[in-house]
Amino acid sequence: MEWMSQGINAPKGFRCAGIHAGVKRKRKDLAMITSESSCSYAGVFTKNIVKAAPVIWNQQLLANGNRIKGIIINSGNANACTGEQGYSDTKDMANELAKNINVSPDEILVASTGVIGVVLPMETIRTGIRKIVEEKDSDENCGKNAAEAIMTTDKFPKVKSLKLKINDCEVIIAGMAKGSGMIHPNMGTMLSFITTDASIDSELLNELLKEVINDTYNMISVDGDTSTNDMVLVLANGESGCPSIVKGSKAYDDFKEAFYAINEELATLIVKDGEGATKFIEVVVSDMSSKEEARKMVHAVITSNLVKTAFFGEDANWGRILCALGYSGAMFDPNKVDVKYISDAGEIELLRKGQPVLFDEEYALAILSEKEIKVSVVCHQGTESAKGWGCDLSYDYVKINGDYRT
Amino acid sequence: MEWMSQGINAPKGFRCAGIHAGVKRKRKDLAMITSESSCSYAGVFTKNIVKAAPVIWNQQLLANGNRIKGIIINSGNANACTGEQGYSDTKDMANELAKNINVSPDEILVASTGVIGVVLPMETIRTGIRKIVEEKDSDENCGKNAAEAIMTTDKFPKVKSLKLKINDCEVIIAGMAKGSGMIHPNMGTMLSFITTDASIDSELLNELLKEVINDTYNMISVDGDTSTNDMVLVLANGESGCPSIVKGSKAYDDFKEAFYAINEELATLIVKDGEGATKFIEVVVSDMSSKEEARKMVHAVITSNLVKTAFFGEDANWGRILCALGYSGAMFDPNKVDVKYISDAGEIELLRKGQPVLFDEEYALAILSEKEIKVSVVCHQGTESAKGWGCDLSYDYVKINGDYRT
Repeated sequence: MEWMSQGINAPKGFRCAGIHAGVKRKRKDLAMITSESSCSYAGVFTKNIVKAAPVIWNQQLLANGNRIKGIIINSGNANACTGEQGYSDTKDMANELAKNINVSPDEILVASTGVIGVVLPMETIRTGIRKIVEEKDSDENCGKNAAEAIMTTDKFPKVKSLKLKINDCEVIIAGMAKGSGMIHPNMGTMLSFITTDASIDSELLNELLKEVINDTYNMISVDGDTSTNDMVLVLANGESGCPSIVKGSKAYDDFKEAFYAINEELATLIVKDGEGATKFIEVVVSDMSSKEEARKMVHAVITSNLVKTAFFGEDANWGRILCALGYSGAMFDPNKVDVKYISDAGEIELLRKGQPVLFDEEYALAILSEKEIKVSVVCHQGTESAKGWGCDLSYDYVKINGDYRT
Repeated sequence: MEWMSQGINAPKGFRCAGIHAGVKRKRKDLAMITSESSCSYAGVFTKNIVKAAPVIWNQQLLANGNRIKGIIINSGNANACTGEQGYSDTKDMANELAKNINVSPDEILVASTGVIGVVLPMETIRTGIRKIVEEKDSDENCGKNAAEAIMTTDKFPKVKSLKLKINDCEVIIAGMAKGSGMIHPNMGTMLSFITTDASIDSELLNELLKEVINDTYNMISVDGDTSTNDMVLVLANGESGCPSIVKGSKAYDDFKEAFYAINEELATLIVKDGEGATKFIEVVVSDMSSKEEARKMVHAVITSNLVKTAFFGEDANWGRILCALGYSGAMFDPNKVDVKYISDAGEIELLRKGQPVLFDEEYALAILSEKEIKVSVVCHQGTESAKGWGCDLSYDYVKINGDYRT
């Protein structure tokens, strides 16, 4: 497994582009991914019952087992809470791209992200789609351009690619994602797009995606809000020419490891670029009675505003960690729990078997001054563990969200 | 029913005091409530499984059906996550007050609030208790002093009293409460103390308290964190001389109405003084299929960081309201929902039957510039409703909690 520098177009047979169409004032706001040959397709979607129009469209194509030729994505407007007009606009986006690349509209997936409750400027978008199909980006640039075009409050594009050998045959997986608000673990949090030239059927790809989601995107939180537009879409076009990946094979295990790696990278990049974030927090709960209980505990810690503000203040206020564990809904004995903070500056024990440990405040401050901090919670009541990622809550989060729309 | 200006000592036979003992540097930090005659006692407590020592002590006295003579409360230190030492210190607090007022320790309730994970300075507290029983506050001052002594990050004392006639016999109910962080609806959020000179047995008082809690304290949120120390304690000493209140009587209904009113007042005062709050938000979800579903929807809206920051920014970003309703876990049809904002400056319709309504941004801003704003969500899918209260999320919330401990 080897990381590459390319974008979403790294796997064979994929093209991409990212341009400014005019939904936003100045920045790029329209991205396209296409494949020469039709792709297996896997997707997971927001569990919010208020679903944006593109979520509904993509779910229909998934339910119908359609194979896919392309994805069109706009930022700057979420096309959510836009009623029947919204759904009709999503279909029009698929139609416009389909017409321009000579495929059927039901081979086109659609995604939108941005402000909720405003109807899409369809003339701008139609013109943009006609322009984006003509875009002659170099292969090196288009991945970055596409990743930039899906950004909203993100500060940097999130794009990763890697290659691996499966039985001596080279396969490439690439992905791009966007955050960075309304991020909360509940199935497919945010937008993420994965392409691969592996040959794998849609059923197996969906099974794999659902498994990987639970330990990656569903274990991150920026602000506890599950968006109306969240989705992870995966396309596999088989262009590597490698044999089809079947379940239970070593090839499947190799592919899964790489697929997990790229999704974990994208998920943690989203948190690192969390709105206003100054710290990246990894929380590991181990030695618990069940994985589900351990996950609940991780979630409670990464979503607690009081824990998040304490990290922003570089304050070793571990009591808030224990408080969050306590209301997580997990059943555990607080009197058995150890808590440590770990960073590049060292590690410090704060709680041992539920009893406070006297610690050096200056040393704690040195550890908390780092940008990446790990919280270790050892429960001593089982063998299961869970891991998740969050960020601190800063003045800038409030600033960004106090005047996002205006 | 008539509101009074007095404090927690307003009902006949109650004494109170509030002093500076030395747990905090300068401000008052020790409060006492005592009753000449022994009291019926009702209590509800945090559902956090990490419980502070005083929570465990008070729950034991409740389970044993003890009658109560007094409450001792310190602020500045929560006595939570303090292990066996913490429980022993709570008992010592009860012992010290009991000894000094010649009652048994198991007639004394204890409460603590403040930082988690630090052992109480017991010598300071013992000396403080010996001092507070000698305190000769005037009746007018002691209520305010006691309410000030339980404050942590609160900006103002929260105290209310009222009198009512029950079959021509006058009964008084008084209460004091504290916020203002770690406030989240999950049974008895924060500290609240209620006294009354009504005669009502402990069993009925507990039943009444549990009912009232669900529509008052459990419907407020400041920051989504359920504290380790939350409790509501009610003492009834019967000193009014009025006949005992029995279930199913008109007297019970009258008492309940007043008891509800004082608890709703205290609950909303806690939110109005929420950490860093600049706006008070009332959310009403009506015409829903069930009360439980309506409550979930209210909770999701009042706890959403994105909704809260939008109110701080006075931004009519109603999409975030709909997004929060959508992930609340309640089953409803978004296409039937109406949403309005209402304040002293007027009201504005934002969503009608799930479709965005074009609105005047200037008028919306005028409405949102007010300090108290009501969000009305009408579901058109039933007859049940729920109401709850929250506040905005401001720079000051981050500031207060970024350096609370230091």
